Order: sequence, then structure tokens, then C-alpha cells
Amino acid sequence: MNNLFEINDWKIIETSFSPEKQKQAESIFSIGNGSFGQRANFEESYSGESLQGSYVGGVYYPDKTRVGWWKNGYPEYFAKVLNSCNWIGIDIEVDGEKVDLHHAKITSFYRELDMRNGTLLRKVRLTLRNGKELEIESLRFCSMKRNEIAAISYSVRPLNFSGNVRFSPFLDANIYNDDSNYDEFFWEEESQKAGNKKAYVCAITKKTGFHVASSMRISFWEENQLVDIRPNYMTKPLYAENSFEHFLEKGKKYTLKKYVSICSTLNHSDFSLITHGINQVKEAYLTGFEELLNEHKSAWHEIWENADIQISGDTAAQQGIRFNIFQLYQTYTGSNEKLNIGPKGFTGEKYGGATYWDTEAYCIPFYLKTADSKVARQLLIYRFNQLDKAIENASKLGFKNGAALYPMVTMNGEECHNEWEITFEEIHRNGAIIYAIYNYVRHTGDTEYIREYGRPVINAVARFWAQRFNWSAAKKAFVMLGVTGPNEYENNVNNNWYTNYIARWCIEYALEIESSWSEKEGALLSKEEVETWSHLVKNVYLPQLEGTNIFLQQDGFMDKELLNASDIPSEERPINQHWSWDRILRSVFIKQADVLQGLYFFEDQFDLEDIKDNFDFYEPKTVHESSLSPCVHAIIAAKIGDLNKAYEMYLRTSRLDLDDYNHEADEGLHITSMAGTWVSVVEGFAGVRINENNITLEPKIPSSWESYSFKIRFKNQTVAITINQNGYHVSNLGDQPINLICNGNQHVLEASQTSESLQLI
Amino acid sequence: MNNLFEINDWKIIETSFSPEKQKQAESIFSIGNGSFGQRANFEESYSGESLQGSYVGGVYYPDKTRVGWWKNGYPEYFAKVLNSCNWIGIDIEVDGEKVDLHHAKITSFYRELDMRNGTLLRKVRLTLRNGKELEIESLRFCSMKRNEIAAISYSVRPLNFSGNVRFSPFLDANIYNDDSNYDEFFWEEESQKAGNKKAYVCAITKKTGFHVASSMRISFWEENQLVDIRPNYMTKPLYAENSFEHFLEKGKKYTLKKYVSICSTLNHSDFSLITHGINQVKEAYLTGFEELLNEHKSAWHEIWENADIQISGDTAAQQGIRFNIFQLYQTYTGSNEKLNIGPKGFTGEKYGGATYWDTEAYCIPFYLKTADSKVARQLLIYRFNQLDKAIENASKLGFKNGAALYPMVTMNGEECHNEWEITFEEIHRNGAIIYAIYNYVRHTGDTEYIREYGRPVINAVARFWAQRFNWSAAKKAFVMLGVTGPNEYENNVNNNWYTNYIARWCIEYALEIESSWSEKEGALLSKEEVETWSHLVKNVYLPQLEGTNIFLQQDGFMDKELLNASDIPSEERPINQHWSWDRILRSVFIKQADVLQGLYFFEDQFDLEDIKDNFDFYEPKTVHESSLSPCVHAIIAAKIGDLNKAYEMYLRTSRLDLDDYNHEADEGLHITSMAGTWVSVVEGFAGVRINENNITLEPKIPSSWESYSFKIRFKNQTVAITINQNGYHVSNLGDQPINLICNGNQHVLEASQTSESLQLI
Repeated sequence: MNNLFEINDWKIIETSFSPEKQKQAESIFSIGNGSFGQRANFEESYSGESLQGSYVGGVYYPDKTRVGWWKNGYPEYFAKVLNSCNWIGIDIEVDGEKVDLHHAKITSFYRELDMRNGTLLRKVRLTLRNGKELEIESLRFCSMKRNEIAAISYSVRPLNFSGNVRFSPFLDANIYNDDSNYDEFFWEEESQKAGNKKAYVCAITKKTGFHVASSMRISFWEENQLVDIRPNYMTKPLYAENSFEHFLEKGKKYTLKKYVSICSTLNHSDFSLITHGINQVKEAYLTGFEELLNEHKSAWHEIWENADIQISGDTAAQQGIRFNIFQLYQTYTGSNEKLNIGPKGFTGEKYGGATYWDTEAYCIPFYLKTADSKVARQLLIYRFNQLDKAIENASKLGFKNGAALYPMVTMNGEECHNEWEITFEEIHRNGAIIYAIYNYVRHTGDTEYIREYGRPVINAVARFWAQRFNWSAAKKAFVMLGVTGPNEYENNVNNNWYTNYIARWCIEYALEIESSWSEKEGALLSKEEVETWSHLVKNVYLPQLEGTNIFLQQDGFMDKELLNASDIPSEERPINQHWSWDRILRSVFIKQADVLQGLYFFEDQFDLEDIKDNFDFYEPKTVHESSLSPCVHAIIAAKIGDLNKAYEMYLRTSRLDLDDYNHEADEGLHITSMAGTWVSVVEGFAGVRINENNITLEPKIPSSWESYSFKIRFKNQTVAITINQNGYHVSNLGDQPINLICNGNQHVLEASQTSESLQLI
Repeated sequence: MNNLFEINDWKIIETSFSPEKQKQAESIFSIGNGSFGQRANFEESYSGESLQGSYVGGVYYPDKTRVGWWKNGYPEYFAKVLNSCNWIGIDIEVDGEKVDLHHAKITSFYRELDMRNGTLLRKVRLTLRNGKELEIESLRFCSMKRNEIAAISYSVRPLNFSGNVRFSPFLDANIYNDDSNYDEFFWEEESQKAGNKKAYVCAITKKTGFHVASSMRISFWEENQLVDIRPNYMTKPLYAENSFEHFLEKGKKYTLKKYVSICSTLNHSDFSLITHGINQVKEAYLTGFEELLNEHKSAWHEIWENADIQISGDTAAQQGIRFNIFQLYQTYTGSNEKLNIGPKGFTGEKYGGATYWDTEAYCIPFYLKTADSKVARQLLIYRFNQLDKAIENASKLGFKNGAALYPMVTMNGEECHNEWEITFEEIHRNGAIIYAIYNYVRHTGDTEYIREYGRPVINAVARFWAQRFNWSAAKKAFVMLGVTGPNEYENNVNNNWYTNYIARWCIEYALEIESSWSEKEGALLSKEEVETWSHLVKNVYLPQLEGTNIFLQQDGFMDKELLNASDIPSEERPINQHWSWDRILRSVFIKQADVLQGLYFFEDQFDLEDIKDNFDFYEPKTVHESSLSPCVHAIIAAKIGDLNKAYEMYLRTSRLDLDDYNHEADEGLHITSMAGTWVSVVEGFAGVRINENNITLEPKIPSSWESYSFKIRFKNQTVAITINQNGYHVSNLGDQPINLICNGNQHVLEASQTSESLQLI
């Protein structure tokens, strides 16, 4: 594997400019703050290959959907994350020649993403076609402290001349989505104004009517001295700029500071939006760049304090895991219940939609362990708020009595996806949403959540499952026909083991919750429901290979040609790029954990031997052609003691984008799978399990690591764990005792206590 | 059911103008000649709701395909039947007001499709907004004798005034496809010229580069007197017209005769095309309207002579069956091996493509029995000519050694369809193509076809099937995974009984043909193929309900909720308009004959009891939401003696479009299913079966019919059959004796002999 960029504990570094890597770099060096984000495009004009991208959380366009053959029940639109106002733009012109790295001769180039501090730095020396030599240095960040603010410090130093240079900082909302289905333009003008060293552009999304106001303030500095400039200002539809010429002395550094606010009607009224944006940016301007930067860094340091994993002895692994953590927190911070975690975060526009089952299955476990419980709670509340639409969605598909089917892909609770085998059939997502509630309560002890928000969601989903099963007279059991499991290399199968299992579990959980809460809070299920469901859960069919403990992925699985992934010629990998869909479907090959996903979720309901035997059966058949696959295999491999396999799987997930395994980093990063990477260290190598009343630990350590350490949250307390080749110890950083089960032995760790050094198995 | 138009033995008649029925009428009254065709649009301008449509056989555009999510192996384009040059256009202007039935006051209206003669007649009396009253009469036809010629006689009679009237006959190739995927324009200009009473427009299809030349000649008549007119002529891109004013005397009839030729580079070189078109139309002009009309009628009478079914006592049934026969022969006459039978013929542009398995499964049996064997032979040759592309298609899907998969939808042999569950999985179509060869030989005795054309096709398809089966260690049999059967309300199922059965039959047939021909003509299959296949056909898995003779549609069928179609609330029918796709898929309901299609094709391999039991099992579960479904059920119902069910099914198919059961006649007619209607009378009610050496007859007659009679072709001879309520008789119109098995009894019918009256069972 080629490392695209330099290996460093805390930084991603690029030391020379490669136009052919520019789109990848734009993704990898993206910055954001959970509310908005920006690809690492250049501030000044760049006419080379580039995907200019600036995304605002929760703002979307209902792009006209594209299907081959319409099916009844398809959604009318596909919500597109909107590429919005370019707020970084600063054009530089020297003697009538625009600075453009595509045409200039570049003599040195340095780009650095500082993950500890959340800043993007670039230093370039270049010679223009007119012979003028310049040094450019830009530093920018999206404030983690003020979630509507960004700032740029952009310096120009003439190296071989003195003379006039034109600076044109601008805001430009004339932006197309690269990924528009019918090349439509998604924005319309609201208003724009420019004034002295300031401007704003307010644009409205067509159809959805979101207003997005981008405002700027600028100041100009000669070395450390503020310069009084008098820019010309100009507006045109969706565009506003300031522009001024200044005489630059050879060797001196001139800095334009650009403060930006980005606000939308997701969070403000249409009436107050522009005023709010102007006020915000004014405040930022008055605070000043250094102070804004410092508070931004502090906010990041706070995140790292809890979320970091330190690995000694393996810098590539260290960089990889930090990159994953960094991207996740750039994408979602839990500050807004209207937001969720898009598969590409703010790094690209592919896929569209914001919310997939990835959130519940992969991201919530990450946030539950690295952040205050409020963060995961917001993600649960997001689904709670969309329950009505999930019920409406299920009713469109013929379900009754308040049954809910959450969408496969959504922005506002409405389904956006439009392949029948996914939209209508990949329904296991409904189970992951309930599992996330269960998991949340287990981690946080916040049982009140069940009372207020949990029960309606749990019951509505259970109603869906109860209706989705049907009685098979032939099998004398309840079966579930026509589903697509997590392994999307099977479509429309009968009795997907994972789906049947999690569906049954949801109904059981609903019954359990009903029985604990109905007395004090009133019944929410009818007597008939309780009776029918109690009967149902006892008679669910779960396919199993006769005479073995192998759970069959679905009916008919054993009719396939039973090959292993190693039997596929390497030139035919990945099979999804080489094989037609029918061939993939009838093959035995598995895209991502399916039965194993179930064994991971419900580990405590199975013997280690069952888990091992099923892993040994399915792992060789798994091609891992989803970014979400290797982490689950890494966790299970560690669990059953196959540390080599676990490490192989871990490597595959942790540097997926950094090393661009799938040759698609140019389109944006795989944000949600990054959570799986974190989990595969903590639950995989360290064997951490959160139970209702204790934490289980079974740490292992890859042979190439000297040590690793991390913290986890458990019922509002922090626990720190450090593992090295000789043993490990655990510190309780909270004020209440914590029960641990370390390699099977019970320990009580008092408040502020650190355990003795414990033996690895 | 409402009859849209008047019931009449030979005609479709509309006696008042209903704008809301105009698009339906345009479809129903369409005329064509197997080479081109034209919807029943008005010659003069019409600004009301209309689908202007003029289609030229074999001329298509590779429209950019539209899919939701691209799958590897999808075709790049979807071949669209092209809406081409409007050649009927004649604009009429009185005192600056264009005649337009949408704005005029219509005092009488009569439209008549004369199926016996193949003519479309229209008589209208109207009052213009300027108060002028006119009578218009137009008669047109697409010559069945000269397949590039059409002619129109268009008369105007002023009723309440004398004065100048402007006539503007034109050709206009500025035509959009209503059904274009991305609103693209498919044509570009080649050249156009206009001269004295003549013009041509030659247009080129983008990408495919077909040149289509439309040429016209006109003459003008006062009553029966030729008038010497001097039109102005004008051209612009893709358009040419003549235009002249003439003083019309009140009460007199003035007739514009417009002769048109339509030729394309499907049949001519680019170099000679325009000249050829001009020569053709000149010849037609010199022949004159009456003579052209007479020879056209004679050509139709010849077709009717062999293809007609006469029904006494049921005019609606009579009209229905003739409408079906008429439309089929308008669509395909067998004169050109490059043409095939599009699902909408020349009556609309929906679906695109020209060739579906409908041709082999439904149309070939019709042409085999009603026309010279050359006609069906052309359809077989069409597939023979596309064998290379079918092999290429299969190789794209991973098949080897010259295996062929014919496309689901095609124009030139390349696949056009793009739903994975159909494109890649509805592969039973490959079997129907081989069955058609077998059926052709059985009807015609032309075994030479096998030698020259049959063997390569049969072997290539058998190779596909042999590779598509895989060994199931679990079942200890060869299974076929991931297919869609004829019942498209199931997708991606395992072991569809029909597909497994016809696949096995194809391999058996290939082995049989190889064994009969290899000695004298050389082996075409390898020894290994013969051995492997011989083993394979003995070990094919065919799902069957244990302990019964019910053949299961697919694995897992009995896990469904076993309802009947009568259990569906009527407001939810048709289910494809009310249910989401997943619900349809997991339901037991059957779109069209599937297991029953197999029992129909391979009837002689099953006991009557098996057929009956399976019919009784599947018929109640069949919703017949395909136009191709009821005919097969009608045939089987008649076979097993359920004449009421047979008649119900027959009614459903025979007047499908005439009475617009599916509310979609406005888009065009269901041409291919019309063949099934004919077959359901002949094979259904009359119980005709063509065997290798004889004809079997088991006639029945619906109680509402007095009698019916028809002719069939068998080994180049014609046999006439008349059935009434008291019995039936058979006439051998040929010069060789024919063996009959009538209700189980052998008869030899000598040349020119008519049987005694035989008893119905």
C-alpha cells in the first residue's frame, strides 16, 4: 500500500504538489466543525482538476430521483447534500495575472492538516508566468467553539519584486452540485450586499426553501500592522466581493484575514437569519483571529482528551486512528438534534442523504464511549423526531396500526433511496435503531430515556416486525420473506438469519420494556399485541445448517457453489467492479458481516464456540467490499483469539481513506466506517464490553505495538485503560466505584483508583 | 366493460368526437404495413391532447439509459423506437383561420377503421370560429402491396360559403419522442427540397446514423377533375411543404391527393436513398390513388383469406379477434429479416426496443398457423443473425466457450434493458428461442433449417444453460440460482421450475439434434460437452410439493401466505398499481403463467391430471396483470374442460385494447399479446395441436357462439376447420393427405377432402 501523504503522529502532511492527487488531498485535508465543512480547496483560483466543495449540515435539495423502471412506493426525490456558498475564496492578481497553481511554476509546496488543533495550513512558493515570485501562506479553521464561524489568515510575500497586488476576497453561491441527477441548479438568489470590508450572500435552496447566509469581514495587515484599506465592492446575483490593490514591498509579508459566518434557517428564522449572520461575523472579527484560533484549539483539545487512542510503536496506526477520530468529530459533535452523520460527512457530495443505519450500528457505539452521553442521545432523539414519518413510510408499504419502518437513507425522515431491494427490503436497519436505544441505556444507565422517548419508537418498530413475519404452514414457523441483509450481495432472500434474529429480539425487547413500564406508566401495547407477539417470538424460524452450529445466512445458502474469497482470481477483485450483478448474487461471496454482525450485536447470547465456528465458516467467504465490513471481523477475530486476522482487518479499515484502498477518496471520505475503526481497537484488541452493571475487559495487543491507551465513558464516568506487551492497567477517573471483569475476574475499582498491572491472557 | 367504439364485424367505428378519447382512438385506429405505421392523428393541425406518432420499422435511437444505481454489466443505452417524420400533414386555412378540431365547432364526426381493407376514413362537418362551415373527408392507407408507400385522399367541401382556402401539405421531421429519457432531440438534418407538387425531407438519427427519407407528390381535384395548381414551396431544416390557395365553390368537393414514400437506410444505401424514395413516390403517383388502393385491399384480402377467424353469434368477439389479427399483420408481415415485432408495434413508443421473448412465445405460433412458413422463418433468422451479439452478451456476464444469452429487449442484438432482476436474470427467454425453432420444424417440416441455422443457436444456448446450473452439494442435484421466471412478480428466486425445465429441455434438444446430425454433418459439440450434459440433464432439480403432483414455482414458494387472488380487496387491484414491490414479491400472487407456461409448452410430457391439478393450484393465485397471461390460461382451461374459465380468459385478452381494460391504450396497443388471443381460440377452444406427423383436434365452442371457423397451415398445406354447436368438420385444402387425430380418433384427410361432421366431446 502506498501512503499518499507523510506519516506523522498528529498531522497529515504533503510536501510537494501533485495535481493528480489534488482531489484526494481535497478530501483528506477537509476541515469542518459538525455544523459545516469544507474540502481543502485553495482559496485563490485553481483551474486544475478539483472538486470545489462546501457543505452545510442539514441543508439539502430534493433532487429529482433517477430510476430505470418506477416501482410503486418509490420516493419522488433523492435528498442531496448541497454544495453551497464558496466562503474561502480570495483571488490574487499580480500585474493582471491571476494566481493559479495550475499555471504557476511551483517551487515549494507544503500542506498540513493538524488534527490536534483542527487547522489546515498551506505554504507555497511559486513563480507566475510573468516572472513574479511569491510566497503564499494560508491557515484556516472551522471553529469548534463557535459552530457558525470560520476564519482564514492568507498571506502573500513578494519574493523578487515590489509592486501592486490585487486581493479579492469573495463569497460565491453560484455553485453546482457535481452529483446532480439532471444537471439542475439547486440555488436561487435571496439577497446579497457588500460594504466596506464586509459582505454577505444569502441564497435559498429551490423546493426545500432553506436560506443560507454567508457573511464575511476582512482586515489587511502588513507584517503585524493593520493597514487601512478602501476596497471596491461589488455584488451580482449570489455573489459579493471586496477588491483592493495594495503596493507590496519585496520580502514583506501581507496578510488578509477573512472572518466568515455560515448560518441557515435550519437553526434560525428566515426573518433574523441575515442579521444573525452579520452579528456573528462581527463578533468574530472583534474577537480577532488569534483568540478565535486559541478557543478553537482548546475545543479540539477537550475532544482529544476523551476520544484519543494513543498507540506507541506504530506511527502509521497512530495517524490512522487519529484521522478517523478527527473526521468523526468534524462531522458530528452532538450539538444539534437536527443533524446526523452523512456517509461522506462534509468531504464530498456522493450518496446524498445524511442518515443511514451506519449511525446506529457504528457511530453511536463510538460516541457513547468517547463523549458525554448527550451526544449519542441527540442521535436517538433525531430518530424519535422522525417517528411519524417512519410510520407514514410503513403505511405506504401496507403496514398498519402505527408500525414504523425507518428509511434506508434520509434527510428529514422521508425515504430517499430508490432501489426496491434496498429501499423496501433492507429492513434490518429498523432493528439497529432499537439496538442503539438498548445500547445507549446500557452505556449510560439513562433509563428515563425509555420512558420519555424509547417506548413509542420500540413499539412502532416491533409492530412492523410482527407484521412483516408471516406464518409458514410448510415450516410451521414464522418466516420473513423477501429481505436484503447487511450483506448486500444477496437481494430479496428469504429468512436472512440476521434480520430474523434482530427482528425477534426487537419484539422481545418491546415486550420486556412493556412489562417493566406498563404498570407505573400505563400500557402502550394492546393485550392482543402482547399475546400475539409472545407466541410469535417463540416460533421464529432461524435457518441453521443441520447437525452443526452454523447459522445460515438465508434459506438456500447451501445450494451455492461453496468457494472461498481466495478462489477469486486477483484480477477479478473487487468483484463489484468486475462481475455482473447476477453473478455476484448467486455466488457465495459476502460483501460485509451479516450473520457475524448478529453474533457481534448479540455476543452474550452465544457460546464462544458458536462464534468461532461461524467466523471460520463465513470469514473466508467475505470479500469486505464495504468499508463497514472489516471492523466487525476485527472485533470477532480478536474475541476468538485470532489476533493476526484482527490486525489484518484493523489495518484495512484504519487507513482506508488515508491510503485510498478503494481509489475513491477523491469523492470524499468514508466517515461512518471510521467509527468502526475506533471500535475495533477498543472492543477488538482491548476486548472492552459495556454491560448493564460492569465493564468487561479482555485486552490483547498487536505484536508491532509497544502500547496503546484510551479512555471510555461508562455511566457518566471516565475510565482510562493502558495496555502494553506486559500487561495493562485501568484507572477510574470518576467519583463512583466501577465494577470490572478483567479476563473473567471481578474487580471493583474505587473512585480515582488505578488498578495494579493486570496480565494479558 | 364499456366498449369504447361501436361493435361491428369488420370495422371499428367512432360516430362522435370525444377529445378525451382522442389518444386512445389514435392508438386503436392506427394503420401500418409491417414496414412503417402511423397513429390515427389528424392530417390538419390539432392543438388538443394528442400523441403524434409515425414510426419506421428498425429505425431506432440509443437513448441514454436511466438507472438509479448502476450495476456492472448494464447496457449503456435503451433503444427507442423513433417517432419520425410526420408525413400525413395537410394544413388547411380559411380566411386566415387554421382548421383545428380543438377550436372548431364539430357538427358531425365519423371515424372508421376498415380492417378488411386496411383503410382509415374520417368524415367531419365543422364550423370555424369565423363561421365558415366545412365538410372534411379523409381516407388513408399504408400500402400492404408496396411497403414504402402510403397515400391520402383529403377532401374539403365548403358548406356555407365560396371562397379561398389554403392547402399546405407538408413533411415535418422536427419530431420529438414523447418518451425520451432526457428530453433529447434524436434527429439531425440531412437535406430537404421542395418542388412543384413534390418535396422530400431526409433526416438522420443521431448516433445510430439511420437516414430516413420521406417524399411526397400531390395532386388536386375539383370533384373528379384534376386541377392545375401552382403551389409555393418552402423548406427549412427537417421540413418541406407545398402551399397553395384555391377558390372553392360552395357545395363542391375538392380533393388533395397526397402520395408518400418512406424509406430508410435499413434497406437502402445512403447513396441511393433519396433517389429511391423519389422514384417510389413518382411511381405511386403515376399509378394513381384508386389503383394503389385496390392493390392494397387485395393484399389485405389475401391475408384475411388465411388468417381470419369467423365467429357467428358474437359480434364483439368477432370484432375483437379481427382487431388482433389486423394489428399483428400491420406490425409484421415477414417481408424483412431485419424487423421484428415491437410490443407496441407502430402504435406508440413506450418500452422501446423491438424484440422481446413475446415474439417466440406468442407471435411465432400465430404466424406459423396463419401465413407461409417464410414469415416465421424470418423471425428465426433474425435471432440467428444476432447470435454473435448474444454470445458477446453472455461473455460480459462471465460465460465462456461460446455460450449465448439473448437479450431481454433488443433492436440490433444488443441488450437494452436495465433492471438487474430482468436483464441478467429473466433468462428463460433463451429457452423460448430454442422452443420456437423446435416449434417451427414441427409445423413446417423444414428440417433443413436445423442444419443451416438451427444448430449453432441451439448449441450456444445449451452451453449457456449448462454453465448457469451449478451443483448443489446440499440437494445433490443441479440447481439454478437467482433467476426471474415469466411471473415477474418474483425476482431473484432459486430454482424457478419453468426455467429449470426449459433449460434442461434445451440441453436435451441440443443433444438430440447433435446425435441426429453429427454423423452426416460433423460434430459441433465436444465429446466432453456431450458427456457432461448427458449427466447434467439426468440430475436437474425441479421443485415439487412433496407427496403431490404440484410443481413448485420456485424454492420456498410454500412459505408464503397461501391466499387467492379473490382475497385481494377489489380497490387494491391491480396490485401493481397499489402495492409496493416488496409486498408483491413476497405475496403468492402470480402476474402471468409461469409453471403453467411450462405445462403449455411441454403439454405432451404431462398427464392431463397433472395439468389440471397444477392449473387448479395456480389459476386462483394468478392476477393476470400482464397482457400475456390470460391466453395461456384460456388454452389450458379449455384443455382440461373448464370452458367457462377459458371463455372468461379469452374475453379478457381479445378486447384488451378495444375496451381499454388496463387504461393505457392511449400509449399504444399491446401488439404481441394479440397473437396469444388468436392462439387461445385455435389451441384453446378448438384444441388444435400441431405434432410432428399430424394435427390433433379437440374442439369445443363457447355457448354464446353459433359457430366459428378458421384455417391453419401445416407443412405448407392449408386446413380449414369449422365448429358449431352440433359438431365440426375439417377440410384439407392442400394436395397431400393429412393425418388428423380428432378427439382421440385417427383420420386421414385426403387432398381436397372435407371430413364428415364430427362430434364435439
